[in-house]
Amino acid sequence: MSHNSFGHLFRVTTWGESHGPAIGCVIDGCPPRIKLSEADIQPWLDRRRPGQSKFTTQRQEPDEVAILSGVFEGVTTGTPISLQIRNVDQRSKDYASVAQSYRPGHADLTYELKYGVRDPRGGGRSSARETACRVAAGAVARLVLGQGVRIRGALVQIGPHAIDRGAWDWEQVYANPFFCPDAKAAGVWENYLDGIRKSGSSVGAVVEIIAEGVPPGLGAPIYAKLDADIAGALMGINAVKGVEIGDGFAAAALRGEANADAMHMAGGRIAFGSNHAGGILGGISTGQPIVARFAVKPTSSILTPQPSVTRDRHDTEVATRGRHDPCVGIRAVPVGEAMLACVLADHLLRHRAQNPA
Amino acid sequence: MSHNSFGHLFRVTTWGESHGPAIGCVIDGCPPRIKLSEADIQPWLDRRRPGQSKFTTQRQEPDEVAILSGVFEGVTTGTPISLQIRNVDQRSKDYASVAQSYRPGHADLTYELKYGVRDPRGGGRSSARETACRVAAGAVARLVLGQGVRIRGALVQIGPHAIDRGAWDWEQVYANPFFCPDAKAAGVWENYLDGIRKSGSSVGAVVEIIAEGVPPGLGAPIYAKLDADIAGALMGINAVKGVEIGDGFAAAALRGEANADAMHMAGGRIAFGSNHAGGILGGISTGQPIVARFAVKPTSSILTPQPSVTRDRHDTEVATRGRHDPCVGIRAVPVGEAMLACVLADHLLRHRAQNPA
Amino acid sequence: MSHNSFGHLFRVTTWGESHGPAIGCVIDGCPPRIKLSEADIQPWLDRRRPGQSKFTTQRQEPDEVAILSGVFEGVTTGTPISLQIRNVDQRSKDYASVAQSYRPGHADLTYELKYGVRDPRGGGRSSARETACRVAAGAVARLVLGQGVRIRGALVQIGPHAIDRGAWDWEQVYANPFFCPDAKAAGVWENYLDGIRKSGSSVGAVVEIIAEGVPPGLGAPIYAKLDADIAGALMGINAVKGVEIGDGFAAAALRGEANADAMHMAGGRIAFGSNHAGGILGGISTGQPIVARFAVKPTSSILTPQPSVTRDRHDTEVATRGRHDPCVGIRAVPVGEAMLACVLADHLLRHRAQNPA
Amino acid sequence: MSHNSFGHLFRVTTWGESHGPAIGCVIDGCPPRIKLSEADIQPWLDRRRPGQSKFTTQRQEPDEVAILSGVFEGVTTGTPISLQIRNVDQRSKDYASVAQSYRPGHADLTYELKYGVRDPRGGGRSSARETACRVAAGAVARLVLGQGVRIRGALVQIGPHAIDRGAWDWEQVYANPFFCPDAKAAGVWENYLDGIRKSGSSVGAVVEIIAEGVPPGLGAPIYAKLDADIAGALMGINAVKGVEIGDGFAAAALRGEANADAMHMAGGRIAFGSNHAGGILGGISTGQPIVARFAVKPTSSILTPQPSVTRDRHDTEVATRGRHDPCVGIRAVPVGEAMLACVLADHLLRHRAQNPA
Repeated sequence: MSHNSFGHLFRVTTWGESHGPAIGCVIDGCPPRIKLSEADIQPWLDRRRPGQSKFTTQRQEPDEVAILSGVFEGVTTGTPISLQIRNVDQRSKDYASVAQSYRPGHADLTYELKYGVRDPRGGGRSSARETACRVAAGAVARLVLGQGVRIRGALVQIGPHAIDRGAWDWEQVYANPFFCPDAKAAGVWENYLDGIRKSGSSVGAVVEIIAEGVPPGLGAPIYAKLDADIAGALMGINAVKGVEIGDGFAAAALRGEANADAMHMAGGRIAFGSNHAGGILGGISTGQPIVARFAVKPTSSILTPQPSVTRDRHDTEVATRGRHDPCVGIRAVPVGEAMLACVLADHLLRHRAQNPA
Repeated sequence: MSHNSFGHLFRVTTWGESHGPAIGCVIDGCPPRIKLSEADIQPWLDRRRPGQSKFTTQRQEPDEVAILSGVFEGVTTGTPISLQIRNVDQRSKDYASVAQSYRPGHADLTYELKYGVRDPRGGGRSSARETACRVAAGAVARLVLGQGVRIRGALVQIGPHAIDRGAWDWEQVYANPFFCPDAKAAGVWENYLDGIRKSGSSVGAVVEIIAEGVPPGLGAPIYAKLDADIAGALMGINAVKGVEIGDGFAAAALRGEANADAMHMAGGRIAFGSNHAGGILGGISTGQPIVARFAVKPTSSILTPQPSVTRDRHDTEVATRGRHDPCVGIRAVPVGEAMLACVLADHLLRHRAQNPA
Repeated sequence: MSHNSFGHLFRVTTWGESHGPAIGCVIDGCPPRIKLSEADIQPWLDRRRPGQSKFTTQRQEPDEVAILSGVFEGVTTGTPISLQIRNVDQRSKDYASVAQSYRPGHADLTYELKYGVRDPRGGGRSSARETACRVAAGAVARLVLGQGVRIRGALVQIGPHAIDRGAWDWEQVYANPFFCPDAKAAGVWENYLDGIRKSGSSVGAVVEIIAEGVPPGLGAPIYAKLDADIAGALMGINAVKGVEIGDGFAAAALRGEANADAMHMAGGRIAFGSNHAGGILGGISTGQPIVARFAVKPTSSILTPQPSVTRDRHDTEVATRGRHDPCVGIRAVPVGEAMLACVLADHLLRHRAQNPA
Repeated sequence: MSHNSFGHLFRVTTWGESHGPAIGCVIDGCPPRIKLSEADIQPWLDRRRPGQSKFTTQRQEPDEVAILSGVFEGVTTGTPISLQIRNVDQRSKDYASVAQSYRPGHADLTYELKYGVRDPRGGGRSSARETACRVAAGAVARLVLGQGVRIRGALVQIGPHAIDRGAWDWEQVYANPFFCPDAKAAGVWENYLDGIRKSGSSVGAVVEIIAEGVPPGLGAPIYAKLDADIAGALMGINAVKGVEIGDGFAAAALRGEANADAMHMAGGRIAFGSNHAGGILGGISTGQPIVARFAVKPTSSILTPQPSVTRDRHDTEVATRGRHDPCVGIRAVPVGEAMLACVLADHLLRHRAQNPA
């Protein structure tokens, strides 16, 4: 058990604060003899990196990863992989005012209620900066899963504006600053988010992650269900308030016939007529694409002054002046992909422990 | 790590199949000197018990719990508490046909893909019967939490029919067979579900669980967030496809000012103007009520014939003849309460390990 | 994490007190499609069973095991295996006096210091009766390891009387009531232990367990070393005070040349000239036999009166009248075998998770 | 579960290889608001540091520790503490020959059997260099335990030469290069070990660790026994082959009356007439000093040529030319202290989770 570790056999332990000297993670349990260098990890970090458009925080972090252990002559050795990313653009003075009061909707309050102390610089440990480590670990998880498994994410809603799912085009995801699969929606979002940003406010979003090529049989009854572990992984991303698998909440309104994915034989293999289940039945993967969605609340750090209280228990108003994402959901896309990759890599190892080939 | 255990310090391991001789659980880590007898557990099991109305399966199980260890002279001793419930109304012949093919939307397929074998009698281990053990464990978890914490659940939607939240009345929850807090909605549901049942179909539902009196500080960054653990716990209940905390998916459409829960001092304590967060910030409880919701898909075992495949890989049609719940979401209410109780008890112990009073 | 579970992937959770209605265990993570019935477990329990000679406690327990879950049509299904053994010969009145004072050298005191309460009947949870569950789990672990792995134990010392290792004969182990591999020593022990027994005293012993056929590569650096896990497993058996692997403490007196096991090629495979290492280097199995030894202290419950204190903190004298083993080390032989089997099964699964064939 | 983590609530994850850029550890679960700076850790590292006498390896490593996270304004924040030590004196060329063959008695062979790859530079992950991280973590564990708990170790035997226990003087431990509590024995050892060193050989040793002031009640039945966890912790130190608690193997030769620690009341508290148990009964601390001993085998890397095999499976002779300790047991003293500190800190947290004050 650990508060800052994720996974069981492919196990990631992260450390570091927003404005400390560095952040990093230790990956334990990675199979040996996998080709690995910084070049396998850096591109994924670059996708999550802040400061790449006006729609994300202007903090400039190169997020350059260094491998400190676990790799010899270009391959993993089966020993722990230590990854480290230096923090280079800390501006702790931005946060001086935050140290004495609590931003509404932020972890400022709860860290202090829990521990009686907190590192207020940039949100300390609660900063979304920690998610860089998740993305780095996810890059390694992808290598464990192998090329047969493809994990991609997209933003499907910003504020009240959802995409047209019929217009879904994966190419678009890589062509706009929103990871938006619908070119038209991306245009709408650009205007909308610009207004949000200029007004000093923020807005929520919905992210969808799809994993194709996942072998059937991953996951386990009863308390290691694949969907339960995915739900925990995604809900554990900063600012996430809801998670769905497959049809999710929409399934509540369906009748049994409408919700079940009928099967038939096709080319000697079991084929499905639909994927309401999102690739998971009874907590175990079916071989269909795994489809997960999560809702991200609006960034709590906004310029708009809000009623709050001080550390010494007086009423106050709080307005955040530091650098922040107007829609933290955007950069949650690569984070969500990484978390799904980590869950799947862990379950791949768990599965073959009990069920050798 | 374990596939069939839940929690870390308040740890529950369940075992048993739908049509085996018994089901049960072992609760490890329960604090000593807590008064405990079967009478503390049985009422909660009775709420979940099948066969109490025409809207749940007609299987008749008394679900009588026996404490086999961990209690001496009426109090817990700190050693493992073994709880056991005999299965008395197995009718395995009902399931003979199911053994040779896979119900669409059911775990039949995936258990077999994973393990190469399955116990088809009543769904074996994947049966919702296992949730009786969760309810039993939840009863003990409530005692660990103490009387200051109140955990209650309600059904807030059946099929497309949601309650009127303005009409919420906790008394109603105990007065109708749906755990419905809105008397008027309960009437609508009765007619609606009767139709579903008679047509041999099934329907989904949404359950809401609220925990009041939870002390602030429970939960932990980063991978032991209270909301992440709740999400995993609820998603791990049979047939659940979505989980929300507080505003959940609705938060995605909100702006920062609308979503944040402003604070002020009241009577020397921090008070909140709203609870969009559902009682959790940064993965740690705020002291406000914890609000979680989950979506239950329609029961996959229905009378309506559906296209499927056989174990020996031929096309077929499957119609389930055994006893089933037309809306498995109803009995998920006490199960959801129990899971939330277990998560909170576990986190209470985790919290005080690191943060002694 | 759990106080009453052992192992990670092949995970055993035990429960039950000496004088409760039953004891039992849940085995989680067992691979599917292994043939298993009570007949595979009972013979191992019979070896540990009390009352088979005058040298073990006279409590008469058939120790009849029942499989309550996890097996369908004679094979494991991959779901938890619940095993249960009824207690039939409890005589709780024997222990009335013990309830009010603490036996020197016994867990009476520490359970109460820890929990503020204890079940004094037959030692409650601290009774060696719990080890029946370990033996039952070990029987399943042997099936996981397969017929290529042979795990056998023997008693090599009782009190000051060690065996002549040159006279080691495995046949003898099954021919005397001491699991003694040296026929001559067995004769000496019989007289010696008869004297101990008649004088109302007890005596310690040393047990040696050898596992042959263990594949190389099991175990893991740094904190999951095979020898570390074996040491923990054996030290966790009741009354054990020391554990050795290979040469153990004798290695401290050796020079590097004398201790190292030289290697050479033989028939295309690596062969060793000796086995000082006891089959483990760097925490990982070499393929040589694994050799472990452990020291069992004399039973603390003896007829001889000893100075002690009462629960209400007065000086007293304690003499135990209940039924006890004059040398609890004898019955520790099958228990030690079982623990080694469980460690190896767990590490087999762990190994193949990270290192698929 | 993790191969490279230790502990459950006070949890240490280490990483790094002997000749990589750095080694380090992440400590998770440390209580908040404990004063901590590098100055609290460095002195313990300095005690373990190599190159301080001719009796340890001549590798020159300053072992300077840096705290990278988890501390703010001089106190722990409850978030993970990342510690890092740069490697500065790697001479990888020393190990070129070792890369192609296996040192007898060394983990060279088994790492490669397990993973199919190894980092041969300085033993890679299997190097005793990793133990610096344990010592660093142990320094933090001591702060968690507080000043009431004192953990000290000593070397009590080198090769065949044991100390005179009657001459035990803790002052001496800090006055000679062997951590030897017997001044006379230290003199004998100096000559003896000089001969061993000059002949290019090595020798084993026995270390004893004593923890005073440990509160009663730490540890837990059945599989989290304090002595079992200590045994696992100490056996997991490089080159350890045996572990004892209290009288250890000597207890096997004793009768019940001789082994039990009689109790009486003294000054209103329970007092013991002896401490054969080494401070632990039934897996739970009694409040008496905890006494543990472990045997360290002779260093396997010696100048003396030994028969071995090559990676490509030919007979060869191996003689190690790199820098090594003639008696690795010496530097195991601070490592043993650290491991005991970590076990106790973990159990302190575990205890208060279940048993709040």
